Amino acid sequence: MRLEGKVRRTPVLEVHGDELGVPGRVVLKLELTQHTASFKARGALNSVLSLPDGVRGVTAASGGNHGAALAWAAQRLGLSADIFVSASSPPEKVDRIRGFGATAHVIDGYYPEAFAAADEWAKGRDVTSVHAYDQYSTVCGQGTLGLEVAEQVPEAARVLVACGGGGLYAGVATALSGRMPVTPVEPERCASLRAALRAGEPVAVEVGGVAADSLGAATIGTHAFAVAGDLGAEPAIVTDDDIVAARRWLWERCRVLAEPGASAPVAALMSGAVAVHPGDTVVVVVSGGNNPAIP
Amino acid sequence: MRLEGKVRRTPVLEVHGDELGVPGRVVLKLELTQHTASFKARGALNSVLSLPDGVRGVTAASGGNHGAALAWAAQRLGLSADIFVSASSPPEKVDRIRGFGATAHVIDGYYPEAFAAADEWAKGRDVTSVHAYDQYSTVCGQGTLGLEVAEQVPEAARVLVACGGGGLYAGVATALSGRMPVTPVEPERCASLRAALRAGEPVAVEVGGVAADSLGAATIGTHAFAVAGDLGAEPAIVTDDDIVAARRWLWERCRVLAEPGASAPVAALMSGAVAVHPGDTVVVVVSGGNNPAIP
Repeated sequence: MRLEGKVRRTPVLEVHGDELGVPGRVVLKLELTQHTASFKARGALNSVLSLPDGVRGVTAASGGNHGAALAWAAQRLGLSADIFVSASSPPEKVDRIRGFGATAHVIDGYYPEAFAAADEWAKGRDVTSVHAYDQYSTVCGQGTLGLEVAEQVPEAARVLVACGGGGLYAGVATALSGRMPVTPVEPERCASLRAALRAGEPVAVEVGGVAADSLGAATIGTHAFAVAGDLGAEPAIVTDDDIVAARRWLWERCRVLAEPGASAPVAALMSGAVAVHPGDTVVVVVSGGNNPAIP
Repeated sequence: MRLEGKVRRTPVLEVHGDELGVPGRVVLKLELTQHTASFKARGALNSVLSLPDGVRGVTAASGGNHGAALAWAAQRLGLSADIFVSASSPPEKVDRIRGFGATAHVIDGYYPEAFAAADEWAKGRDVTSVHAYDQYSTVCGQGTLGLEVAEQVPEAARVLVACGGGGLYAGVATALSGRMPVTPVEPERCASLRAALRAGEPVAVEVGGVAADSLGAATIGTHAFAVAGDLGAEPAIVTDDDIVAARRWLWERCRVLAEPGASAPVAALMSGAVAVHPGDTVVVVVSGGNNPAIP
């Protein structure tokens, strides 16, 4: 596997279901301990390693996590990286990007504005764009997380992952297809997959709320949309209050300082948005930790 | 095993040695994800489960972590808990104790003053004292962490643990005796084991520095002293600056928010206080996370 030994095999922590008010076993996949503190390191490194010879630089738009991951991956390979983030991204994420030696361009607005700016900037420059979620090499990289889950928790009855643009969902659901079902979890204020499934095609939605910095893609990726359709997936929806409560639980009870978006799958369990059958083992992916506070 | 299924089997995270400037593999044992956010849950629950029938309450002096753990264990079994902490303990630790339904008595001074106050208070009361580190049932409970390490990282060449009163060290070193060597790590300002080994018996030392809230026992426990003598252990010594740097590394690179004392074993690697042979696997126990800040 191209990423073997280059990304971390992140650990899993089993907690009693009754701590979360569910009747089964819950296993947290602590992906926030990944390089750059999110699963995005997998997809970004896989994309950079897939580039043809001769490419000297990469660029991307990002809510922050993909940008930090791409900056990290580019630095490892000696490439330049220009990352376009929106002014709504937490300063911590922008600092991380710069900390990996990349140039961070902060753009007024949200992800779509950053995306347009990156696109415009790349024109006529000798750089390659690496999409944050809707690119095959990125999705495949995220899928390695699913392969680890299959090895670490083969008895899992279900895996829950946060869904923004859907790169993580598409990769993990594909990797685990035929082995265990994967449920995408969306904040109700960033529900681009639900909207797309209702409309029959990806459509832009308004995004906002506590998890918008990581799950605020206005339009679901075509890969995630196709995978969800093929597998008949129904996204679970959580509120901002659910996310805040789950985030606090992760910190208070596990000393896991997840970012809001990464707390959404835990919120889906605690709120009952995803039902657990008695005795089942559910894996919950805690996918990033780049938006601190709490302590 | 008495604690099976009652304490968490905490996860391990492998990082590249070169991230820490050492030539081998480094495996972090993330014990801060334990109940009550430290290894103390193991010893406290084991001690409470060892009590004779009819005991209705427990008491202890504590820097904070043992107190929270004992409060938690007592709550599980329906016992009262009165915990004596010194005024130097972080407020966060006192809040945790109260959060588990115990009464926290805050005493002017340091651990010895809290210990004396607890002792005085218990006289004529129908409660049982549970020592934070120098009691067989406590040490045995901490040893279960060593048994997990042996299962999770059987190839380890060495295990590093922080040493304050030495309950964790004594338990883990005993559990792993004959299988893998265990090095106790002391801050130079809390070096009670080193002092005892030099003096030929446990002696009181002055304690202070960034890790005193968790490693500030003035006198090493008799169990730890005996185990270190039997095994010929040499404590590794780290400075406060080493600890602060290690703590920052754990947060920045792994999103692990360890308390200062729990960062000491990582500091021993980063500072070179413990040498690693090329290719060796070293396990570093990150034993608690109850003294936040940083983010």
